[in-house]
Amino acid sequence: MITLRLMAASLLTLAAPAMAQEEPPAPGSVVAAATPEEWVQIAPEDILVMELSPAADGSARRVVIQLLPPPFSQPWVENIKTLARAHWWDGKSIYRVVDNWVAQWGGGDPELDMDPGPLPEGVVSPMVPYVETWGKDGDEIVLWHPRDYLEDNYADWAQFFDGWPTAYAISADTTQLSGWPVHCYGSVGVARDLAPDTGTGSELYAVIGHAPRQLDRNIAVVGRVIAGIEYLSTLPRGTAEAGVYAERSEDTPIVSVRLASEMSDPPAYEYLDTASDSFARYVEVRANRHDSFYEVPAGGVDVCNVQVPIRPVQ
Amino acid sequence: MITLRLMAASLLTLAAPAMAQEEPPAPGSVVAAATPEEWVQIAPEDILVMELSPAADGSARRVVIQLLPPPFSQPWVENIKTLARAHWWDGKSIYRVVDNWVAQWGGGDPELDMDPGPLPEGVVSPMVPYVETWGKDGDEIVLWHPRDYLEDNYADWAQFFDGWPTAYAISADTTQLSGWPVHCYGSVGVARDLAPDTGTGSELYAVIGHAPRQLDRNIAVVGRVIAGIEYLSTLPRGTAEAGVYAERSEDTPIVSVRLASEMSDPPAYEYLDTASDSFARYVEVRANRHDSFYEVPAGGVDVCNVQVPIRPVQ
Repeated sequence: MITLRLMAASLLTLAAPAMAQEEPPAPGSVVAAATPEEWVQIAPEDILVMELSPAADGSARRVVIQLLPPPFSQPWVENIKTLARAHWWDGKSIYRVVDNWVAQWGGGDPELDMDPGPLPEGVVSPMVPYVETWGKDGDEIVLWHPRDYLEDNYADWAQFFDGWPTAYAISADTTQLSGWPVHCYGSVGVARDLAPDTGTGSELYAVIGHAPRQLDRNIAVVGRVIAGIEYLSTLPRGTAEAGVYAERSEDTPIVSVRLASEMSDPPAYEYLDTASDSFARYVEVRANRHDSFYEVPAGGVDVCNVQVPIRPVQ
Repeated sequence: MITLRLMAASLLTLAAPAMAQEEPPAPGSVVAAATPEEWVQIAPEDILVMELSPAADGSARRVVIQLLPPPFSQPWVENIKTLARAHWWDGKSIYRVVDNWVAQWGGGDPELDMDPGPLPEGVVSPMVPYVETWGKDGDEIVLWHPRDYLEDNYADWAQFFDGWPTAYAISADTTQLSGWPVHCYGSVGVARDLAPDTGTGSELYAVIGHAPRQLDRNIAVVGRVIAGIEYLSTLPRGTAEAGVYAERSEDTPIVSVRLASEMSDPPAYEYLDTASDSFARYVEVRANRHDSFYEVPAGGVDVCNVQVPIRPVQ
């Protein structure tokens, strides 16, 4: 039994912007009001298009993944592009689905009666999860767009960097800053065995549950699902060890995985620039909902509950 | 451009307990080592058993929900028990499923060609989401089990109370403390219209995505799915407005909803006492993974990433 201590320092406070409209802004209205210049088109060579076998009703199942740009999670992304160019995933499968955790696909494990075959030339291994570091030799450390930084339970703070949720830690002597991409719903990462240098990118997973932030810095985030996540999240859950399907006949076949830059009719997407004024306002509104349904604004938000707006380009 | 300020005060620090074993503890090993006295059996009158129509392969689909005990989210829970005793949900359906958001069921909306019929006698309305308040008239405020309190982006802090994740805020004059149950993956809440007093408990939803904490205090959490969440999370996503199924034929029929206390062969479950030493250690281990797979312990965790261990009783 202890007496209450005030912990106001742990509260995220975000000022509500002045409003001209009558209806308070909602996240959707803020995004709709963003200017064309605030949207950033995703490079076709950073888009991976995975076609699954058709659904039971014959409809197509296309999952679109945006790959993480530098400096984070290289060189896995290069491995993944090499694998896609070699059509390495064609004919492989989604073989593991765990509720509130991940859907996983790739070459598979010989122990599971899957023969992954040799990796294409140019795939690099071993690698370990990448953490960018700044501030060596006592450099001044610079932060980006301080308005939208966020408290974080798993790091000193979280922030959006070039469109991606990222987290940061300061070294004990305060001279170095490190940063890394974080695991949110829809994040795509590199599966590996127990040893940290065993992932090549040939086995990938997508998060289909609450952000498993304990995986940050332990497994490499290399991208995120930007369309078709429902074709992964609705798959039956596996019943064998670790959520692998008990029989290979339960797997979902992968028809093809291609880089959009190699397709004749590629899909195109753009995201709301996370350094833009509209994105800063979007974060503020997500943290302080005053639109019709809401009676009590939370006064805060966590980085994985701020989905970066992404939309198809016509 | 700003110079870095140290924000160590925002870090959750949890001491790693001294270990006797060789293999560092994992969440599962901590739970397995809990004593029988640390488990609390859930009262049969707090368990709701929802049988959905069988799956395409004929297998049963049973969703088990634990209802929230006092003081939180009463009197909705009483409404829900009244509805279950009247067999009100039998023959109704799951008619709305939104990816990374909710699956929703109940009597339905006449606009959706569903006739909910009159509510049973004894169902109370209107009600608004309940927030417990302590410390009126300058009482000393007492916290429970301070070891496992957690930083929180949506409140002054989060904590587990009688087995449930809850969040707390302190009034500006520091004389009052308020607390409420939070929305995590699997949480069950009372759907409502725009006005806050329009939910009766006859329409419910389960969270099937990242914790939508902005709903806290805006909609009442009344329980959580403790078994069979995969029968909700794998349902096809709705394609009409707000994720409602476009056709009623897409709905998943509800065969029956019963309180375990009224069943002849009821399922039984127990949860790990959140005031127990084992639960405190479980939180510490979830925040600081040192078991085989992990190279970098996070040093923190968020309240919705600490799933309360719940298991069937034989």
